[in-house]
Amino acid sequence: MKLYIGNKNYSSWSMRPWVLLKAFGIPFEEVKLRFDFTPGSTFYQALKPITPTGKVPVLVEDDGFAVWDTLAITEAIAEQFPEHAIWPLERQQRARARSLCAEMHAGFGKLRGLCPMNVDVDLRAVGAKLLSTEPGLHTDLARLDALWCEALAASGGPFLFGAFGATDAYFAPLVMRVTRYGLPVSAPAAAYVAAIEQHPAVAAWVKDAMAEQDFLDFEEPYRQQA
Amino acid sequence: MKLYIGNKNYSSWSMRPWVLLKAFGIPFEEVKLRFDFTPGSTFYQALKPITPTGKVPVLVEDDGFAVWDTLAITEAIAEQFPEHAIWPLERQQRARARSLCAEMHAGFGKLRGLCPMNVDVDLRAVGAKLLSTEPGLHTDLARLDALWCEALAASGGPFLFGAFGATDAYFAPLVMRVTRYGLPVSAPAAAYVAAIEQHPAVAAWVKDAMAEQDFLDFEEPYRQQA
Repeated sequence: MKLYIGNKNYSSWSMRPWVLLKAFGIPFEEVKLRFDFTPGSTFYQALKPITPTGKVPVLVEDDGFAVWDTLAITEAIAEQFPEHAIWPLERQQRARARSLCAEMHAGFGKLRGLCPMNVDVDLRAVGAKLLSTEPGLHTDLARLDALWCEALAASGGPFLFGAFGATDAYFAPLVMRVTRYGLPVSAPAAAYVAAIEQHPAVAAWVKDAMAEQDFLDFEEPYRQQA
Repeated sequence: MKLYIGNKNYSSWSMRPWVLLKAFGIPFEEVKLRFDFTPGSTFYQALKPITPTGKVPVLVEDDGFAVWDTLAITEAIAEQFPEHAIWPLERQQRARARSLCAEMHAGFGKLRGLCPMNVDVDLRAVGAKLLSTEPGLHTDLARLDALWCEALAASGGPFLFGAFGATDAYFAPLVMRVTRYGLPVSAPAAAYVAAIEQHPAVAAWVKDAMAEQDFLDFEEPYRQQA
């Protein structure tokens, strides 16, 4: 199967299923499409026959069937590979894991909007400035920290539900925000951030993102300030 | 189990799992919390011991375990009641159904933002005005129409995947926007809109919403114009 993704430095949504597949050693072919959101771009032309949404990531099965949106991709992977604990094995833990992913999917708007993912650059000065002017960023960060801490306390860590799974892949791009923008988190959350960054699948994505060196002005609101 | 919901006239997210449970005849206790988003309100006080998000809907199982966010609630219901075809039975159809729900979960921002759900009132004049000034509304509406038409053509209707299921419950609040704001849709989409409105579970919600008569200023940007 193929996973269509965007620029690794920027595409936080692409990072989720890529890291998930890598973490479980599920083979796939990566198809990277350079971000270009001008109408008729190569990016849109490549996606047009595959998905009506014009967005990455998209998982394309061997028969050409396309699954889009990271949550649906995650469920499809979990169904296709029941030998892997993509979701927690216990029913209520699994429900909680889905609650957290769904909350992330539609939430954390300030954190995601103000601090777009940019793996390659040290944005701690920008983060400090944003923290001093954006109360909504603090609200999102407090909820993120509490969410992580509650799950870690219940599972004992090192990942949200013990072993690495879909929920961790889902929050990995938020970990990238915490470290790149230098956002303050509690000690248990900081330990989780470190565990995510050290996970081989996350480290592999970060390495690729750092090597990419394909900077796009519209994805770089802060590089000149950094 | 209990389903915590908000005002039936306004709470589009609450409508989804409520309609889903009703449609499949799954018994549940409804706990309606009147919307009040001021800090420390009765609404927040009631939710505080149940969910950290302070949002409805929340499904609370008999042992007190809480599932929040509609997508996670839908998956929990599907797992708890495998005797019902909450999702389509065929794997790829099921994946597609999840893609459409996830796309809805994080998308259609203009349509949802400009046309908040208000079951009780005829907002066709407002809809006409919005259509004349908001190109983003047309973009969302075109995608919604195409999404519905493609699924209906593949399944043969009358619902998105043939029989009524989670995806239909998910799009029911968008049907409410189409009819209340008088948004134009294609003939196949209009037939789907009618099928949704005539479904007993949707009709039951609408009846309750119409009887509610609990109007909240902050949910009524347009009532005076109507």
